[in-house]
Amino acid sequence: MENQQTIQPLFHVLKSQQFTRPLLDELYEITNKVRRLAKTKEGLDFLRTILSDKRGMLYFVQPSTRTFLSFLNACQILGIQTSEIRDTNTSSEVKGESIYDTIRTFCSYVDVVIMRYPKAGFVEEIAQVMDQTPRPVPFINGGSGPDQHPTQALLDIYTLRQSFKDLGGLENKTIMMVGDLKRGRTVRSLTYLMKHFKGVKLIFVAPKYLQMGDDIKTFCQDVNIPFIESEDMNGLLPEADAVYMTRIQDEYDLNGESKALDYSKFHITVDNLKLLKPASIIMHPFPRRFEINIEVDKDPRAMYWRQERNGMWTRVAILAKIFNVHNKILNM
Amino acid sequence: MENQQTIQPLFHVLKSQQFTRPLLDELYEITNKVRRLAKTKEGLDFLRTILSDKRGMLYFVQPSTRTFLSFLNACQILGIQTSEIRDTNTSSEVKGESIYDTIRTFCSYVDVVIMRYPKAGFVEEIAQVMDQTPRPVPFINGGSGPDQHPTQALLDIYTLRQSFKDLGGLENKTIMMVGDLKRGRTVRSLTYLMKHFKGVKLIFVAPKYLQMGDDIKTFCQDVNIPFIESEDMNGLLPEADAVYMTRIQDEYDLNGESKALDYSKFHITVDNLKLLKPASIIMHPFPRRFEINIEVDKDPRAMYWRQERNGMWTRVAILAKIFNVHNKILNM
Amino acid sequence: MENQQTIQPLFHVLKSQQFTRPLLDELYEITNKVRRLAKTKEGLDFLRTILSDKRGMLYFVQPSTRTFLSFLNACQILGIQTSEIRDTNTSSEVKGESIYDTIRTFCSYVDVVIMRYPKAGFVEEIAQVMDQTPRPVPFINGGSGPDQHPTQALLDIYTLRQSFKDLGGLENKTIMMVGDLKRGRTVRSLTYLMKHFKGVKLIFVAPKYLQMGDDIKTFCQDVNIPFIESEDMNGLLPEADAVYMTRIQDEYDLNGESKALDYSKFHITVDNLKLLKPASIIMHPFPRRFEINIEVDKDPRAMYWRQERNGMWTRVAILAKIFNVHNKILNM
Repeated sequence: MENQQTIQPLFHVLKSQQFTRPLLDELYEITNKVRRLAKTKEGLDFLRTILSDKRGMLYFVQPSTRTFLSFLNACQILGIQTSEIRDTNTSSEVKGESIYDTIRTFCSYVDVVIMRYPKAGFVEEIAQVMDQTPRPVPFINGGSGPDQHPTQALLDIYTLRQSFKDLGGLENKTIMMVGDLKRGRTVRSLTYLMKHFKGVKLIFVAPKYLQMGDDIKTFCQDVNIPFIESEDMNGLLPEADAVYMTRIQDEYDLNGESKALDYSKFHITVDNLKLLKPASIIMHPFPRRFEINIEVDKDPRAMYWRQERNGMWTRVAILAKIFNVHNKILNM
Repeated sequence: MENQQTIQPLFHVLKSQQFTRPLLDELYEITNKVRRLAKTKEGLDFLRTILSDKRGMLYFVQPSTRTFLSFLNACQILGIQTSEIRDTNTSSEVKGESIYDTIRTFCSYVDVVIMRYPKAGFVEEIAQVMDQTPRPVPFINGGSGPDQHPTQALLDIYTLRQSFKDLGGLENKTIMMVGDLKRGRTVRSLTYLMKHFKGVKLIFVAPKYLQMGDDIKTFCQDVNIPFIESEDMNGLLPEADAVYMTRIQDEYDLNGESKALDYSKFHITVDNLKLLKPASIIMHPFPRRFEINIEVDKDPRAMYWRQERNGMWTRVAILAKIFNVHNKILNM
Repeated sequence: MENQQTIQPLFHVLKSQQFTRPLLDELYEITNKVRRLAKTKEGLDFLRTILSDKRGMLYFVQPSTRTFLSFLNACQILGIQTSEIRDTNTSSEVKGESIYDTIRTFCSYVDVVIMRYPKAGFVEEIAQVMDQTPRPVPFINGGSGPDQHPTQALLDIYTLRQSFKDLGGLENKTIMMVGDLKRGRTVRSLTYLMKHFKGVKLIFVAPKYLQMGDDIKTFCQDVNIPFIESEDMNGLLPEADAVYMTRIQDEYDLNGESKALDYSKFHITVDNLKLLKPASIIMHPFPRRFEINIEVDKDPRAMYWRQERNGMWTRVAILAKIFNVHNKILNM
């Protein structure tokens, strides 16, 4: 246990880049322990006492089912009581209050703020502003526009490591990312974490218009992650150890430009599934539209539903770590 | 206790027809015990430990106050923690996700899904689809369009039996159902349960256009429940042991057709109340409009407010039975 | 402790006028004790057992962030489980149910109803109606249109007393109220409580059109609270021990009349802050717009954020008193 005390504490969760390999390893270990404890009523009742003195705020200004419910259930698992605002029409912002006052109000009542906000970088900005007040609380970025979704990246890494646990881990694997890489915050956040795993290669498959952003590609070059860009999903499928599918983020279209694209060659069906290696896995951050045919769900390589449930467990681990009660769980 | 083990387990709650008399009797017994326990803080604190390891989802796509709040409070009584979606604008369906993926997502996080959905038969369909996944959870139908509302029927049966407990039970009683019998899911679900009580007679009072559906009338004939159809409420009131009032379900109108009807002769007021037997009771599933004048609330035969509260207790019993912890309650 | 038993019990919380000085003193004492207990996990875990057998309804028909969240968190601190309706589109009112039936429905399921409603006097009216039913529950007025906001007044009194605790208490202080005094329910409710503190003087600063209502001014005369009316905030700032700022309540405008006013001379900035005594405090019920420049937040005399957090603690005390478990807290 002693070496655990040398691992960095965690306060705000704002972007993937803040995570170190030891911290990823620790969160991985906590997540595994939480899952084991959750198999019995005794274990779940124990978990529910861990943060029974805390209250959290879920402030989700963009629509969300998964991330919202996943965080809410993670809070409940640890005994954190929650408030939620999902519809700003019922809040004081309609009376002309500034977003800063609204969020500082949350900080008056609760111990952690989990928020989704459409503006890139805003959660980070607000966390810095609130750090100057007498009662700073941790902020967790639950998705900041097309920018970042760090807890999604953490659960993705967890899922990859679990899937490859008998295959030497995530190291030396080839990860194919498919779809709207330009505006998909999940693939952006995930790529940042790949630098912690030696020998990982990336394949970015997207229509030219939606290829991965230059900032991420520069990052890969800087940290020596080899990557290729392509439009030929089927040709490259046989090389992938994991295929990470994403949907077109047309809510960020300016003029409906993504409607004009033929997206069908970036879809997984039972047909092109045959191109995939037997030990490969298919992931998706959800929600999906047509990227993965529903028939694929029955294939054992379809990992996305387990990935989704992993999100809840990973978020339990993150919350426990933030409040520095993770050793209570690990020592249980 | 031993004979309790022979009673069928309960998983999904989808429609009235699935309930047997022994199961109704068991739910009746659990409900009574829950009500007794709920009279003290000790009892309520005990109940709150019973399902403290469970989490539930309330997914209500149609407006609801009563059923929603009743289930939510039932969950809280048993310590079940809940998530809710009542406004689909805040969920991922706006991003083009299929309803199947949305609901399977709930199943990733929670242990029971309670849902109201406008499409007849849909809750049953979705339960079957989810039963094919690796993590099936119980589904509870909280109202499926004009089709069914099985937990309402269960609470109605509970209320009838409690009201007639010193009068020989529900057996041999005459139940009058009044109003929009065609599209009222509560009277439909309730009629299915009447076959378990010998000697019950039904009186269907409705404007011709809104009379009870043929499927239900055929059912009555098949299981030998005598019924009559009439438009003459006042003429038949003296024969009723229970009068079950319902409102016009004009949300299912295609062209405002129910607006043209004179509905006033299907109303209970302090005047025609005099026609009712002293030991009779008046019920209503709520919400009401003008079917029962508010002055009637003071009459001791007005049972609808108690019926409403019984709904919460009955739903506690249903949830305890589903998770097979009802004997913890019965043995307390 | 014995003399505590002579203090009046508390059931409904409807308007400021119902509070006596002994009751204010008792709530003040409970609030202080709650804050002390809330400093440790043990204390918070203890508080969460206090009302773990109770369930509450938050029915907020007008937009609210602060009062809603403050009450919700207060409930959570005491272990009260909650239901909420903040958007009447998802409830049975859309099916034509009367507000009386809707609210009586809440009373069927829960033990306390906390409500915000736009109509003056309505919470009081509904509480009286429900008192005639077999299962009356306490109602708490969380803001009744432009009329009253009694729990805001209680938290304001708490904040004033805490701020002046080493300065002889609230007695003999000069309180300046600034802004929309005509339609600002917080200043109205607060003024009613001032009669319990000897020697308090009031300064009402507002544009003529928005000056304090005659009913409140008559009240002041009747109970011998000296007050002056003025438009000259800066000229009077040096006399104030507390400045209570409010925003223009333009949601009550009939024809946008308050848009025509020059409101800038009723604003606090770092400039006119210099006019204020070193030991004075600045309060605001929030939300704010431009009444207090954000730069003022850093001044030690800015008490509004602490005031906001005091709201949560005061509401814990109110709930504990209503359910007569406050002595459990005081004796802890």
